[in-house]
Amino acid sequence: MHAREPIDLLIAPKWLIPIEPAGVTLEDHAVAIRNGVIHAVCPLAEAEQRFDARERVSLQDHVLIPGMVNLHTHAAMNLMRGIANDLPLMRWLQEAIWPAEAACVSAEFVRDGTLLAGIEMLRGGITCANEMYFHPDAAASAFAELGMRAMIGVTVIEFPTAYASDADDYLRKGLAARDHWRDHSLIQFSLAPHAPYTVSDRSFERIVQYAHELGMPVHMHLHETRDEIAESQSRHGIRPLARIQSLGLLDTDFIAVHAVHLDLNEIDILAAHNCSIAHCPTSNMKLASGAAPLASMNKRGLRVGLGTDGAASNNRLDLFQEMRHAALLAKVTSGDAAAFPAHTALRAATLDGAAALRLDETIGSIVPGKAADLTAVALNSLECSPCFDPASHLLYAAGREHVTHVWIAGQARIKDGAMLWDRNKELLPRLSMWQTFLKTSAKSQ
Amino acid sequence: MHAREPIDLLIAPKWLIPIEPAGVTLEDHAVAIRNGVIHAVCPLAEAEQRFDARERVSLQDHVLIPGMVNLHTHAAMNLMRGIANDLPLMRWLQEAIWPAEAACVSAEFVRDGTLLAGIEMLRGGITCANEMYFHPDAAASAFAELGMRAMIGVTVIEFPTAYASDADDYLRKGLAARDHWRDHSLIQFSLAPHAPYTVSDRSFERIVQYAHELGMPVHMHLHETRDEIAESQSRHGIRPLARIQSLGLLDTDFIAVHAVHLDLNEIDILAAHNCSIAHCPTSNMKLASGAAPLASMNKRGLRVGLGTDGAASNNRLDLFQEMRHAALLAKVTSGDAAAFPAHTALRAATLDGAAALRLDETIGSIVPGKAADLTAVALNSLECSPCFDPASHLLYAAGREHVTHVWIAGQARIKDGAMLWDRNKELLPRLSMWQTFLKTSAKSQ
Repeated sequence: MHAREPIDLLIAPKWLIPIEPAGVTLEDHAVAIRNGVIHAVCPLAEAEQRFDARERVSLQDHVLIPGMVNLHTHAAMNLMRGIANDLPLMRWLQEAIWPAEAACVSAEFVRDGTLLAGIEMLRGGITCANEMYFHPDAAASAFAELGMRAMIGVTVIEFPTAYASDADDYLRKGLAARDHWRDHSLIQFSLAPHAPYTVSDRSFERIVQYAHELGMPVHMHLHETRDEIAESQSRHGIRPLARIQSLGLLDTDFIAVHAVHLDLNEIDILAAHNCSIAHCPTSNMKLASGAAPLASMNKRGLRVGLGTDGAASNNRLDLFQEMRHAALLAKVTSGDAAAFPAHTALRAATLDGAAALRLDETIGSIVPGKAADLTAVALNSLECSPCFDPASHLLYAAGREHVTHVWIAGQARIKDGAMLWDRNKELLPRLSMWQTFLKTSAKSQ
Repeated sequence: MHAREPIDLLIAPKWLIPIEPAGVTLEDHAVAIRNGVIHAVCPLAEAEQRFDARERVSLQDHVLIPGMVNLHTHAAMNLMRGIANDLPLMRWLQEAIWPAEAACVSAEFVRDGTLLAGIEMLRGGITCANEMYFHPDAAASAFAELGMRAMIGVTVIEFPTAYASDADDYLRKGLAARDHWRDHSLIQFSLAPHAPYTVSDRSFERIVQYAHELGMPVHMHLHETRDEIAESQSRHGIRPLARIQSLGLLDTDFIAVHAVHLDLNEIDILAAHNCSIAHCPTSNMKLASGAAPLASMNKRGLRVGLGTDGAASNNRLDLFQEMRHAALLAKVTSGDAAAFPAHTALRAATLDGAAALRLDETIGSIVPGKAADLTAVALNSLECSPCFDPASHLLYAAGREHVTHVWIAGQARIKDGAMLWDRNKELLPRLSMWQTFLKTSAKSQ
């Protein structure tokens, strides 16, 4: 008789959707975890024979999926959730968001807002965020404190803020933050030029150079509105995508956020360069920016992950909602009820987001050797009954309110729906303070 | 010194959105309830002076709104939630739904499915459902048992089912059910011809006659897909709306469900006849039927309420979701980020639904003299923090999972998030039984 292998944790869910292989829902399987890594995925009966688990979590009404990847957010904007609504992008930015940011944004604001956003994401089953905002060092410290995985953008924008004076200053400060966090296992950095209309050719050239030298992905808003494209055509004589292609951005590990207005040729160019889209359907609908051609992107092999955008333009950091909105919007705009079906949506919210970040060797699917970033969703409420197919239920019936357990690198972050972080009580009075501060600054303008 | 007036219940929420007057959010107000009716709405300090309440409910982090009206559903289809997805309407009906119904639908099926749907709706803050399905007597008995308000459709369709043999038989059985429930304060009946493509001119003529004689509203699917319109043009030479107008249906209290494909002239015709739309954005998107012209309907004064449709094509009976989807879809399709703003959405989900049912003298707003049908939503979770505007939070940040209390005619149905109905335990094994039955019948085909 063989001794059983010692492992740290055995998770035994009713259903398991590993994402790889594609389209599969396993029943009565278990995941064995050792040193934060997925050691095995096998039938429960086999797991009972093979492993001696220090801890065992039985999830008899649950489906286990990879932790979700939020491919675009501005976490600190959680402090501005709902501050202005029912406005188009440029009025929303110019009349509400930029003045509020000018008055309030500081390292403390970013840290508190990112903590609030991180808790919201973790409770909703999101284990990794692709972040873009000011004060990246403060954002990194908030994600690290929560034990959440993040790709922090070194934001670059030409105009001065309280945080930095010009594009070079943003780059210098952001890269210093990257150096500071270099040895943290959960925190990585990307380069995040804000958008074609706020970044100069010279800055783009520096960004491309750093991307190659330092091996950093590039994360940028692109083709969000028709106005953005018209402005580029009038100022540069070409569409924004053609401009950044000529500057070499598509030769980096490039993530185009929104990409609402792309023609088929542009989809093919992005696919040929192995670029990725961060599709943010709720934000695009709410700001009336338009509907990205998701069905065509899927057909032509362009990688698409899902992002929530910031809470000020959504107003939820909820990837269940983004999966549902992506599917519904793709169906209604393409006229094809089969567009973006359940397993495609689940892959976009997990593995394709991870691949966009070039983290797909580490996260994004439940396979041996990857980090144990996992989300469990209970499907036994009356709202989810009956359940004929857990994959379609994750897309159309369940919500983030049904997430019960979240692990990151094998560490429990959410258990029985509750956050395993005991500093909520310190955070709450600070949230009230920021709200009062924002209200006062809005009145004084 | 005056004696204080005795009342049954005083509810003191942080915020109160009465819907009438329009666009108002009251703070520190209270609702006084006597004999199931709203007796007064006034500042809390004044209420403390005036009333001696037998029960008092203090909701310090909550917004109180009128109970929501689900203007279109097929409640029993909850038993088929998620049974087939990612299919267009006619394939979904012909390949999945109609065969399942032929195998399974009985009075017991309808009663159990309606109980499940009723609980889902109540937990999500819906107090009144506009229902259309087979076995209306069984549906009525389920809603009555839960203490939920409902308008039960006398469904009419030409083809035979296990329930009825032909259109006359559907009418006869449905009207008998109406007679049976005539004295119940929460249950009323409408006439519910299924759709122009499944009901004959002769049946429509009888329905119009009954509608006038008995004062019943008429509730029907209309212009849901382009195929429906093309089929009518080829069979009748005119669009379905023109056909039913010529048959007199628009002279009844008519509710057109879906109305995805309407031109501006058709919108004006429906508005001129004081008809109403039951807009079901999730179902329309999921089945790729199209996007109803909501912004134009609003501008041209056509009344629009919101419906979930059945759980088999949605797959949630969730009016928070429908408000959000209606707003997001209206914005993205009209290109106007100001389309369908928060207070308009809240009115559609409450008062406009009530008016469509000709119940707006009884329900739909928080004003003295109306029934105390009320829903409380907690906005203190981290997912809803901060809260600058409770109305926009109801639309964009909160969800049905934040509903804590529901009253119907002054009777508590949900308290602290829990259903005050103690027969859940009997229902659960019956749900499993129906699921097994549906799976078996699908395999045997």
